[in-house]
Amino acid sequence: MSESDEKYMLRCIELAAKGLGYVKSNPLVGCVIVKNDKIISEGYHHAFGMPHAERVAIDRLDDKTQIKGSTIYVNLEPCSHYGKTPPCAPYVAKMKPQRVVISDVDPNPLVNNQGIKILQDAGIQVDVGICSMENRKLNRRFFTFIEKKRPYILLKWAQTLDGFIAEKNQNYIKWISNNATRQIVHKWRSEEMAILVGAGTVRCDDPQLTTRHWHGDNPIRMVVTNSGNLPINAKIFDKQAKTILFYSNTPNFTVNEGNIDVVKIENDFIDTLFAYCLENSITSILVEGGSQLLNTFISREQWDEAKVIVGNKVFGEGVRAPIISQYTHIDIDKIDNDRIIHYTR
Amino acid sequence: MSESDEKYMLRCIELAAKGLGYVKSNPLVGCVIVKNDKIISEGYHHAFGMPHAERVAIDRLDDKTQIKGSTIYVNLEPCSHYGKTPPCAPYVAKMKPQRVVISDVDPNPLVNNQGIKILQDAGIQVDVGICSMENRKLNRRFFTFIEKKRPYILLKWAQTLDGFIAEKNQNYIKWISNNATRQIVHKWRSEEMAILVGAGTVRCDDPQLTTRHWHGDNPIRMVVTNSGNLPINAKIFDKQAKTILFYSNTPNFTVNEGNIDVVKIENDFIDTLFAYCLENSITSILVEGGSQLLNTFISREQWDEAKVIVGNKVFGEGVRAPIISQYTHIDIDKIDNDRIIHYTR
Repeated sequence: MSESDEKYMLRCIELAAKGLGYVKSNPLVGCVIVKNDKIISEGYHHAFGMPHAERVAIDRLDDKTQIKGSTIYVNLEPCSHYGKTPPCAPYVAKMKPQRVVISDVDPNPLVNNQGIKILQDAGIQVDVGICSMENRKLNRRFFTFIEKKRPYILLKWAQTLDGFIAEKNQNYIKWISNNATRQIVHKWRSEEMAILVGAGTVRCDDPQLTTRHWHGDNPIRMVVTNSGNLPINAKIFDKQAKTILFYSNTPNFTVNEGNIDVVKIENDFIDTLFAYCLENSITSILVEGGSQLLNTFISREQWDEAKVIVGNKVFGEGVRAPIISQYTHIDIDKIDNDRIIHYTR
Repeated sequence: MSESDEKYMLRCIELAAKGLGYVKSNPLVGCVIVKNDKIISEGYHHAFGMPHAERVAIDRLDDKTQIKGSTIYVNLEPCSHYGKTPPCAPYVAKMKPQRVVISDVDPNPLVNNQGIKILQDAGIQVDVGICSMENRKLNRRFFTFIEKKRPYILLKWAQTLDGFIAEKNQNYIKWISNNATRQIVHKWRSEEMAILVGAGTVRCDDPQLTTRHWHGDNPIRMVVTNSGNLPINAKIFDKQAKTILFYSNTPNFTVNEGNIDVVKIENDFIDTLFAYCLENSITSILVEGGSQLLNTFISREQWDEAKVIVGNKVFGEGVRAPIISQYTHIDIDKIDNDRIIHYTR
């Protein structure tokens, strides 16, 4: 790896990150085409269903003969299969670059080195592993989904300075976080494919679970209910987004709306949830509470990141916030009077 | 009460507050002398053993005949007894003011209306109760000591954002609070007559319990130990301040230093502590930990204020911070990245 390889690959990763929240469930990919140590084109995967990064970078050039003899940087192996778009590897090969530099092999069984093979068979030098750490961090949802066969799990809650997640007698919602922090939560929602809450949260808070204070699509709303008793008029049943109910006992209502799905929990909720996500390509979930649900993911060590807002409030009594003891890294940000502890497992 | 009565009495209280940390175990008292709606003199009790507020205000005037016909404001009844200084009530009476305005009767059995009687017998109009709420707040240590027959108890601890007061394996002190907050703790120490910690805190942290980062006298250091086992070289045994050991079992060392006292705990620690404080005019204690000791005061509801520093740290595991559920008021301050929750019971 040369210094310039690293420099161009970090540019790919920077470009790729622009797709966050839009490309899901695809990986985030950027591409840079370099000739004589100069970028002659670049591109990234903008949104799910849209052209891949390599195709964007190539097609931006009117005179594609320039690509001959160039080095193409791309942070994930070019695909070899027909998906929403035609495969990239043969298209890249056709351009006759001298070299293709890749951060990581695409672990998707449909690709998994076959894209590299197409390039090599066309006589192109392929170097793999440049900025792999940065790429795996950027595409942590994608790699977790394929390698661990489960969605990437982000936990999120807000707690008071004295460690409560909810008041004792919760007759109305008393906000813990400030306006700016509440807005950033909507940004976080826009970055994930689904939001999960327990039925207690629906009953107490009646949340909309949408991204209304940020741009981007609403994620799928997921609710787990043992009793199957949910208020018919709950906002999660509105038409703003798709809602999936995981239930143990038969729900207290008939589901006749196109945007609502029900899934029966077989034995274990988390197993059922993960199987559903695998089948439906739901690569990430933001778990927003309540404490029982959050503690389930924590105690089973089936989470990847946690974002804990510590608001500038004191409740004195109520529901204790979960505690995270197992983490490899923390960052603490502040937004006005709130703190955000960002745990990485 | 007229508006100007309130205005002048608040000035007394403002002046009185300047003595905080210096007058202990005396009350904080200020005095203002007003003639023709103009302040002609004022004063306050500067330090224990120094002249009282009324005497300071009177003696500042070269021509004391001006006081004749004036109104004297003082936030506590002038004393009628010989203490460190001669009594104030006869001295005030001699100046022949027209009126004396007082916030509160001095509940000290040695005064308790006798000062007022001296003034009234001299034909002076006496009005009591002006800004009593403000005065009782300012002199909360003094009123608690006399009325509840126990010292005023302030609890203080520092906790992390995730609610820990100490790490799991405390091999060295990991500071929770920042430099500025640590300094303010020394200010708090200077305001109270004693600091109390448990033996565990001495063994783990080996604190000096002094006011070295602030001006003012070191308070008396108090340590409670059941086992009687304390490290001989602990800093609390140095000569910087007086240290009192409350013990259940006979201590593991002979006390032959002038600045160290030992007190045997009879039945109950808190009863023994309070009895000792009553006997020795220790009107206030800052309880600095550990969690067991703090929780004892909280569960027995024998505390008056708590100052909880929430530092910008995360421990993940360790000793959980106490929780305060019974309070009438909270304030939240911020000092750099720390929060201070100030509870009033």
